[in-house]
Amino acid sequence: MTISNSNGLLQATRDARGVVTLTLNDPARFNALGSEMLTALQQALDAVARDEDARVVVLAAEGKAFCAGHNLKDMAAHPDLAWYQQLFAQCSRMMLSIHKLPVPVIARVQGMATAAGCQLVAQCDLAVAADTASFATSGIHYGLFCATPSVPLVRNVPAKRAMEMLLTGDFIDAPTALAQGLVNRVVAPEALDAEVEKLVQSIVQKPRVAVAMGKALVYQQRELGLDAAYQLAGQTMAANMMDAAAQEGARAFAEKRSPAWKA
Amino acid sequence: MTISNSNGLLQATRDARGVVTLTLNDPARFNALGSEMLTALQQALDAVARDEDARVVVLAAEGKAFCAGHNLKDMAAHPDLAWYQQLFAQCSRMMLSIHKLPVPVIARVQGMATAAGCQLVAQCDLAVAADTASFATSGIHYGLFCATPSVPLVRNVPAKRAMEMLLTGDFIDAPTALAQGLVNRVVAPEALDAEVEKLVQSIVQKPRVAVAMGKALVYQQRELGLDAAYQLAGQTMAANMMDAAAQEGARAFAEKRSPAWKA
Amino acid sequence: MTISNSNGLLQATRDARGVVTLTLNDPARFNALGSEMLTALQQALDAVARDEDARVVVLAAEGKAFCAGHNLKDMAAHPDLAWYQQLFAQCSRMMLSIHKLPVPVIARVQGMATAAGCQLVAQCDLAVAADTASFATSGIHYGLFCATPSVPLVRNVPAKRAMEMLLTGDFIDAPTALAQGLVNRVVAPEALDAEVEKLVQSIVQKPRVAVAMGKALVYQQRELGLDAAYQLAGQTMAANMMDAAAQEGARAFAEKRSPAWKA
Repeated sequence: MTISNSNGLLQATRDARGVVTLTLNDPARFNALGSEMLTALQQALDAVARDEDARVVVLAAEGKAFCAGHNLKDMAAHPDLAWYQQLFAQCSRMMLSIHKLPVPVIARVQGMATAAGCQLVAQCDLAVAADTASFATSGIHYGLFCATPSVPLVRNVPAKRAMEMLLTGDFIDAPTALAQGLVNRVVAPEALDAEVEKLVQSIVQKPRVAVAMGKALVYQQRELGLDAAYQLAGQTMAANMMDAAAQEGARAFAEKRSPAWKA
Repeated sequence: MTISNSNGLLQATRDARGVVTLTLNDPARFNALGSEMLTALQQALDAVARDEDARVVVLAAEGKAFCAGHNLKDMAAHPDLAWYQQLFAQCSRMMLSIHKLPVPVIARVQGMATAAGCQLVAQCDLAVAADTASFATSGIHYGLFCATPSVPLVRNVPAKRAMEMLLTGDFIDAPTALAQGLVNRVVAPEALDAEVEKLVQSIVQKPRVAVAMGKALVYQQRELGLDAAYQLAGQTMAANMMDAAAQEGARAFAEKRSPAWKA
Repeated sequence: MTISNSNGLLQATRDARGVVTLTLNDPARFNALGSEMLTALQQALDAVARDEDARVVVLAAEGKAFCAGHNLKDMAAHPDLAWYQQLFAQCSRMMLSIHKLPVPVIARVQGMATAAGCQLVAQCDLAVAADTASFATSGIHYGLFCATPSVPLVRNVPAKRAMEMLLTGDFIDAPTALAQGLVNRVVAPEALDAEVEKLVQSIVQKPRVAVAMGKALVYQQRELGLDAAYQLAGQTMAANMMDAAAQEGARAFAEKRSPAWKA
């Protein structure tokens, strides 16, 4: 099934398992996050949030680049504070929608991810990269410090590594991104789809409600002190345990069989 | 000296140096953290907290597994929200007791550590693993997201690595756990005791009061903003310096000799 | 240009690019952070903060050691709580001045960095080490837990690694420091200046205002929840974009040329 998108900037497909693939499709502009692309992404993410049978999102891209971030050409044409504030608010809202989505989002990074494109990778819950991919918070080369990209970056990679990327704007390659925690796995380009599919497979086999409660809990408790984090996590886990799928899972464990969940 | 435990689920020994070894001793149930085991651990940790000559705790386990986490069979038998809330509250209280203990706790991980067993490793101050050990937050395989294990996990390993473990439930091996920061050292199984003893030796040579102030300070300041963290750390360090052991240490340094602390 | 320092403990030079090099120059005392050295550093950092043409600070050291931290001999001679409180307050104020400085600070670590000397490396924004350098939070060997050094340490390296350094006081070598995130790069001693210069070059090519806004933003947003962090980062980035340098940068990008910024 293909979900139509008015301007073709974003391709959206959804399979019978509930796997939604969103593909940035503006290779001529390196899949830049202009206002139209951000709107298309927001609409697609909002649709996934309403789709109770969606299970996981793969965020992919067409062409040589994964995503070049904001469109500097457009930004040069609008020297207007309100215009910039609106643009960054729109972009941050989209990034937070990834964060708040009840299903995991996996970045499938086949090429360069720069500035807000690198932020997109950092903001996803999981990321798989081809060994030809590269990553940079490159705004500083043009006098624009990658402030919003720094938000998920410092929550993914060690402090001095993040600061070096932000101050120099230099690229790191995929193995370095793996070592620093920016991506989960790096494979040859021809193995990229198979590697993403392994994570997708693993996620769709789990009960949706447990995944949704879990994803939300991880990010909420991370912002709390340890006592409050344990308090919230214990309540969440007890509620999770009352769910029919967890009850069946625990019985299946006790009876040494696989859980019989509806497919 | 062996501290008796009513039901034998937990062995506790304490040597003349104040090294307390707590050994999970329910190998037939993979040292699962049922309510009785949690009670035994809580009592043992409370006893250590009151023992002014205790210096360090080693948390070990008998059998093939280190700890399999909660007892899913018991949980299947009690489909009751209040029962689950009580269980997770009891478990979190035990985990926080490790955190608040005035002496360091070292996990000695000889085998599989899954779900709340993996949480136990993450919650300890230090961890040494045999290269045959493995780690998973596996609850999601049974429809139960490892919510409470995620609390120390995200405070030990990078964000995307933690999320991958939590969403897939898959095992990581000991070298991977080392690379991700979940354990401090990995050695051959026959070298495990010697490696743990190196850390024990190092800790018992240090003044107890400095270690206790230090452990508490590290976790307190980590939850504060940078200015407040420095404020608290400076006050703590000045108080530490007024202690007789630190005074002797500083004089010993000035006089180029070893500190003469009581053994 | 050399900025004179009353007692010669600290050498300060500044080149035409605005690169300030502060060199700890008390090798006989392993560049210990006594009260005089702290005063000299504070004055130098305050001068950089007022110097609107300063672009980056390199923090270097003469002799075999980078910095041995506080002067334990002095501390042994003043068994006085108020004296210690004043000393740690003075030291923390200097450390926070590095943090708050509008220009990046790069540690150039040619030798041993212990206790508050290791803290100095951790507190800098970036660090380059010779492969002969080594790092320890060694106070605990003298009964004094490295409380203030733990503040930047736990914000740079994984939790269990930091705790191991703090509890054992043992040295880690430069490759280990690199793997753990305490430094950005490790090179042979003869390549140390060239490697530092690469980072310096990269920074002085960027607009000062963007670097200053960016450094401050990264540390501010890191202490906030994700929503608030994005809110602040978006406002900062919009303000940054209104700066003449960023406008020129975006136009240069659109016109496929290098930005024409004043040298």
